[in-house]
Amino acid sequence: MSWFDTSIMATRGVAKGEARSHHRLGEAEQGDYPYIYTAQIEPRLRVDPGAVITAETHDAFEGKIKSESDRPSEILNFPYLNPQNGPIWVNGAQKGDVIAVYIESIVPRGDQPRGTTVIMPEFGGLVPTKDTALISPGLPERVRKLHVDETTGVRWNDKITLPYEPFIGTLGVAPAAEAISSLVPDYYGGNMDMPDVAPGAVVYFPVQAEGGYLYLGDCHAAQGDGELCGVAVEHPTVTTIRVDLIKNWAISIPRLENETLLMAIGASRPMEDAARGAYRELIRWMAADYGFDEIDAYMLLTQCGRVRLGNMVDPKYTVGASVLKSIARANL
Amino acid sequence: MSWFDTSIMATRGVAKGEARSHHRLGEAEQGDYPYIYTAQIEPRLRVDPGAVITAETHDAFEGKIKSESDRPSEILNFPYLNPQNGPIWVNGAQKGDVIAVYIESIVPRGDQPRGTTVIMPEFGGLVPTKDTALISPGLPERVRKLHVDETTGVRWNDKITLPYEPFIGTLGVAPAAEAISSLVPDYYGGNMDMPDVAPGAVVYFPVQAEGGYLYLGDCHAAQGDGELCGVAVEHPTVTTIRVDLIKNWAISIPRLENETLLMAIGASRPMEDAARGAYRELIRWMAADYGFDEIDAYMLLTQCGRVRLGNMVDPKYTVGASVLKSIARANL
Amino acid sequence: MSWFDTSIMATRGVAKGEARSHHRLGEAEQGDYPYIYTAQIEPRLRVDPGAVITAETHDAFEGKIKSESDRPSEILNFPYLNPQNGPIWVNGAQKGDVIAVYIESIVPRGDQPRGTTVIMPEFGGLVPTKDTALISPGLPERVRKLHVDETTGVRWNDKITLPYEPFIGTLGVAPAAEAISSLVPDYYGGNMDMPDVAPGAVVYFPVQAEGGYLYLGDCHAAQGDGELCGVAVEHPTVTTIRVDLIKNWAISIPRLENETLLMAIGASRPMEDAARGAYRELIRWMAADYGFDEIDAYMLLTQCGRVRLGNMVDPKYTVGASVLKSIARANL
Amino acid sequence: MSWFDTSIMATRGVAKGEARSHHRLGEAEQGDYPYIYTAQIEPRLRVDPGAVITAETHDAFEGKIKSESDRPSEILNFPYLNPQNGPIWVNGAQKGDVIAVYIESIVPRGDQPRGTTVIMPEFGGLVPTKDTALISPGLPERVRKLHVDETTGVRWNDKITLPYEPFIGTLGVAPAAEAISSLVPDYYGGNMDMPDVAPGAVVYFPVQAEGGYLYLGDCHAAQGDGELCGVAVEHPTVTTIRVDLIKNWAISIPRLENETLLMAIGASRPMEDAARGAYRELIRWMAADYGFDEIDAYMLLTQCGRVRLGNMVDPKYTVGASVLKSIARANL
Repeated sequence: MSWFDTSIMATRGVAKGEARSHHRLGEAEQGDYPYIYTAQIEPRLRVDPGAVITAETHDAFEGKIKSESDRPSEILNFPYLNPQNGPIWVNGAQKGDVIAVYIESIVPRGDQPRGTTVIMPEFGGLVPTKDTALISPGLPERVRKLHVDETTGVRWNDKITLPYEPFIGTLGVAPAAEAISSLVPDYYGGNMDMPDVAPGAVVYFPVQAEGGYLYLGDCHAAQGDGELCGVAVEHPTVTTIRVDLIKNWAISIPRLENETLLMAIGASRPMEDAARGAYRELIRWMAADYGFDEIDAYMLLTQCGRVRLGNMVDPKYTVGASVLKSIARANL
Repeated sequence: MSWFDTSIMATRGVAKGEARSHHRLGEAEQGDYPYIYTAQIEPRLRVDPGAVITAETHDAFEGKIKSESDRPSEILNFPYLNPQNGPIWVNGAQKGDVIAVYIESIVPRGDQPRGTTVIMPEFGGLVPTKDTALISPGLPERVRKLHVDETTGVRWNDKITLPYEPFIGTLGVAPAAEAISSLVPDYYGGNMDMPDVAPGAVVYFPVQAEGGYLYLGDCHAAQGDGELCGVAVEHPTVTTIRVDLIKNWAISIPRLENETLLMAIGASRPMEDAARGAYRELIRWMAADYGFDEIDAYMLLTQCGRVRLGNMVDPKYTVGASVLKSIARANL
Repeated sequence: MSWFDTSIMATRGVAKGEARSHHRLGEAEQGDYPYIYTAQIEPRLRVDPGAVITAETHDAFEGKIKSESDRPSEILNFPYLNPQNGPIWVNGAQKGDVIAVYIESIVPRGDQPRGTTVIMPEFGGLVPTKDTALISPGLPERVRKLHVDETTGVRWNDKITLPYEPFIGTLGVAPAAEAISSLVPDYYGGNMDMPDVAPGAVVYFPVQAEGGYLYLGDCHAAQGDGELCGVAVEHPTVTTIRVDLIKNWAISIPRLENETLLMAIGASRPMEDAARGAYRELIRWMAADYGFDEIDAYMLLTQCGRVRLGNMVDPKYTVGASVLKSIARANL
Repeated sequence: MSWFDTSIMATRGVAKGEARSHHRLGEAEQGDYPYIYTAQIEPRLRVDPGAVITAETHDAFEGKIKSESDRPSEILNFPYLNPQNGPIWVNGAQKGDVIAVYIESIVPRGDQPRGTTVIMPEFGGLVPTKDTALISPGLPERVRKLHVDETTGVRWNDKITLPYEPFIGTLGVAPAAEAISSLVPDYYGGNMDMPDVAPGAVVYFPVQAEGGYLYLGDCHAAQGDGELCGVAVEHPTVTTIRVDLIKNWAISIPRLENETLLMAIGASRPMEDAARGAYRELIRWMAADYGFDEIDAYMLLTQCGRVRLGNMVDPKYTVGASVLKSIARANL
C-alpha cells in the first residue's frame, strides 16, 4: 500500500482518489491560454472527480523569449504573462468543497534550450520594484537560456548542473467573484511558486465557485527558496494531474500532503503574515484531523514545525508551514 | 480665478475641466451595484469628457445594517460588500491616458440614523485578521448607528459630535485585465479610503482599458487616518463629480491635487512600501511638471513632504505623500 | 490661563510644571557628547523636578560636514553619529515614573550655512539600505549646506525657502539595562524624528532606571513626514527644556500633548506595527484619563484619529497617533 | 580528511582551526551570567585562537521555571532573561577580523524534567505582542516541563517524542558601541535562534571591538522553524566550542558553514528584509570566494538557494540563506 491510499484525497474523495477517466488538454484542446484566474470564462474541459488530465503547459513567457539577446521589457506585455491551462470544470464542485489535485508527473517538452530565466525591470527580490519603489537604479536586463533535461538536469554553465526537480508554479481554483492575474498567489492557490507542489504531492484548494475552475501552468525545472530574482527555470512541459473532489471540507487556504508531511500555504505581505497564515491553518488542520488542542499544536510546532519560503517576489509572498506526518499521526 | 483654473484638469483636459453635460446615476439608472472593478461588464453610463455625474451611492453595506443589534457576520456576505456606482465609460479614454475626477459635492441621503460603523470578525487594525492571522481571539462584533447631518455633523454620543467631513472612499478605474474586489485599493484607485478624496479635489487615475470604466462609492461622513477599526462612518449619499480626460499622460498610481497640495497615493503592504510608492510618484511629478532634479526633489521632500495614512486595514494599505503647491511652484 | 496649566505635567508633576531652577548644559558643561542612550555613564547634570535646562546641541554630524564637497562616507564614523546632550539625572525618578519634558524654545546657533542635509550610502527611504538589502546600486553621495535663520527660514535654493519649524529629533530617557545608539527610537524615546516634539509641546517618557538619564539632541530646522532621505535640515542649536517628574504613572511608550492634541509615539518595523503601537497606547490613554471604553475609543479613533509619520529611515520607524483634546475632553 | 579541514576556519584561522588549549567556563568560573551583549564588562575568560571552551549554560529562564504550575509573568523579570556565558576575550581580535566558532558538542545537564517551553504574555508568533500591538486579548500563560535526554529525545507527551537536535540559540560577539539585550539578534549574532548553529557547524562573526567579546547561551533541545510560540525547548547544557580568529576578513553579518552548505544569517523586520540581507551576504560570499559574478550568483540562487527561518518572534526575525557547497565549489 502506498502512502497515497491513506491521503485525504483517497479516503474522502468522491472518486476515492482513483483514476477513472483520462483527458488531454494539449495546445490544440486548450486554444488560448488565459492569464487570469476567474470563473467568468468558458471551461476548456469538464470532468468528473477521478479525472486524469494531461496538459501541455507553456512556460511563463509563452515561449516568447528565445535567445539570450532578447530584451524581456520589449517582448513581454505585462500583465499578459504566465499563461495557464484551463479552466477545468469539476462536476459537483460547490463552494464549501475542496478540489484535490494529485500531481502524477511533469515532463519537459520543446526544443533546447528550453529553460529560461531572466532579470527584468522592477521585478525581483534584491532590486527596487513596483512595491518596494525606490529612486535608485535597478539592474540591467539579462536572459539565460538553459538546457533542461529530465535525466541530466538543468545545465547552468559548463561547471554547474542542477538536478531536474520540477513542480507546478501556478495551480489553483478561481477566486470568489474576482478575476485575478495568474501572477498572484492567494487563498485559492494561483502563483504560489512553492517547490513542494511537485510530483507525488496532493494539493487541496477551497472551491469558491460552482465547478471550481481549476487552472495550472508555470512549471519550473528548478527553483530555490524565494525564487530570488523572480524567475525560476521556466520551461514548457507535459504535466499530468489527477483531480478529485472532497465534499464539505472547510479549508481557508491551500493545503498539501505528501508521503512525509502536511503543509499549509500562506500568501501575504509582509512575509511574516504569510508565515502566520500558514501556521494558523496548519494548527487548525492538526486540531481537526489529528486530535490536537490548538494551543498544544502551537507549542509543539514551536519545536518541530518546518517552513518553506515559496516566493519573495510575487505580489504576495508565499510561505509553507509543515509538520511531519509521523509526528501528527503519533498523536492519534 | 479659482485655483481649479490652473489645475491639470482645467489646463490639459479634453474638456478644459468644464461642465459640459449633466448625467444622473441614481438608484434607478444604476440598477445593480457592482462589487468589482472590471472592464468586463456593461457600462451604466457613457459620457464625454466634461460630464457632470450625480450618483446616488449606497453605504458600504448596501444599507443592510439597520440596527445596533444586527450582527454583521450574519448579514454580510463577503466579498459582496462595498457596492459601487458605475462603471462609467468615458469616450476617448485609452490606455496611456488619465481620467480626471473633480469632486463637486457629497450630500448625505436616507433616513436617520444613516451612519454606520461596525466591528466585524477578522477585520481591523488592532485585531487578528486574515492576513495577520493569529490564534488568539478577536473582539466581539459591535454595531454603531449614527445620526449624520451635513450641517450638524456626526453624532457619536451625547457628548461628542464630529464634523461632517465627507469624502469618497472608493473611486477609480478598471484595472488592466483583472476584475478586483471594490474592497481593494491599488494603482487604479479603488478602495483607497483616503480622506483627501473630498469635495474640492481633483483625482487622476491611469486608464487601463478603453473607456476607462470609472467607479465610485463608499462615501464616508468622517474618517480618521488609518480607518482604524476598518469601518468609517459609512453612509449613503448623493455625490456629484465632474469627469475629464487627459490624453497621453503617463502616471503610475493615483494623483490628487487641490487648492494647496499635490499628492500621490501609494497602495501596498507593508506600509512602508505604500509610502515609498507614493513618494516616488510624487518625485516623478515634481520632476516632470515643476522642474526638479529627482534627487533634489528627494532631498527637498525630506524637509517638507507630508504623509497621510489612508487605511491600515484594507488588503493594501494606502499612503498619500504630498507637497504644498506653494513650494513646488516656487521652483518654476 | 494657558493650556499648559491643564497639562498632565502641570497638574500631576512633582514641581507642578513650574520653572524652579535654571541650568546650563553648554558645550563646556557637556564635555564629550555621548552617542548612546544608557544609564551606565556619569550624568552631566543632576536636577530636581522643575529644572529648566538650556543646552547647546550639536547637529547630528557634530559639525563635521562643513562643505558641499565633503563626502559623508569619508568623514563620518558610524555608529558615532547623533551626539547628545546629557545624560541628565532627575532626582527622585524611579522605574514606574514618567519624566515630562516641556520644550520651551529652540534657537539656531553657529556660523552660516549652519544647516546640513546629505545623501549617504545605504541610508534613506528610497534607496537600498542595510535592512532593505539589495544588490542594485544606491545613489551617489550628496551634501547640501543651507542657510538657516530663525526669522527668515531655511533657504533651500534661490527660489525656495522653507519656514523654520524646529523640533528635537532625539529625546528620551535611558533604556532598561541596554545601551542603545542614539540613532534608534524605541519605547524610551530616542531618535524619534517626530516633528511634533517641538516648542510648546510636553513629551512624557517612561523611566527605566533610577534618575531617568535624560538625553536630547539632533535638532532639525525643518523636516517632512518620514524624513525621506534620512537626513533632515540638521543644525546646532540652543535648546531650552523644562523637566518635571510624574510619580507612578505607567505608560509604555512616549506620549505627547500640546495645546490641541494627545499623541502616542510608536516605534517599530514594519510601519504598520509602529502605527498599531501608537494607536494602542492612545486608546489606553483615552480609557485611563478620559473615561472611554477601550472598544469605543477604538471605534471613535477610526473616525477622528490622526497619524503623523515621524521617520521611515531609522532602525525603527516612528508613527504618532493622536486625537484632538477637544474630542477627548468632550467625553468627560 | 574531514570537511572541516577545508573550512575557512581551518584554512584561514590563526590557529588553523586546531584545538590548542582547553578552558572551562562552568557556573563557578562564570559567576554572574550577563543578559547583555556588550564590550563594556569584564571578560570572564581570555583565550588565544585555538581555544576549546566548555561552558555550563543555563536555560533561557535561568532555571527559574520549575513546574507547570509556575506563572512566567510572575517569575520572570524582563529584560533580565536569556543569561549568557561570557564574554570571552579572544587575543588578537580587532575590528575587521572575524571570530570563528566551531561547535563541538552540546550535552544536556540538570535534573529532569529539564526542558521548558512556555506561552507568556505578549510574546509569540500568533498572538498580539509589543510590536504587533493589538487590543484583542492574548492567550493564557502555559508552562510545559519536558523530559530531555540526549539519547531518547524530547518527550512531548505519552505519544510524541521529538529527536534531541540541540543547537546554540544565542551566540555572537559584542556589538559596536552599544550594549544590547541577549534577546536580540543582529549583525553581530546574538539571539539568532537558528537551528543550523548546531554541533558540526562553524559560525563566523564580524568583530566589532578589540577582543571580540564572545557570548553564548540559550541552548535548545529542539526547535521548529520560526520558534513559533517564542520559546523552544529550553534546557541547561554543557556546551563545547572551539574558537579561532580570521584576520582581515570583512563580513557584514554572521556566516555559517558545515559539511554541506554555506549560509548567511540576516536579522531584520519585516521578514523579507531579513531574507534580503541574508541572500545579499551569501551572494557576496559566493562572489568573493567562489568566483561568481554577483548577478550570476543572484540568478543561480533563484534556482537553488535554500532559506531557513530561524525565528519569527524575537525583536528581529532571522533568516538563513544558503547554498550547497557542492554547487558553489563546482564553479571554481
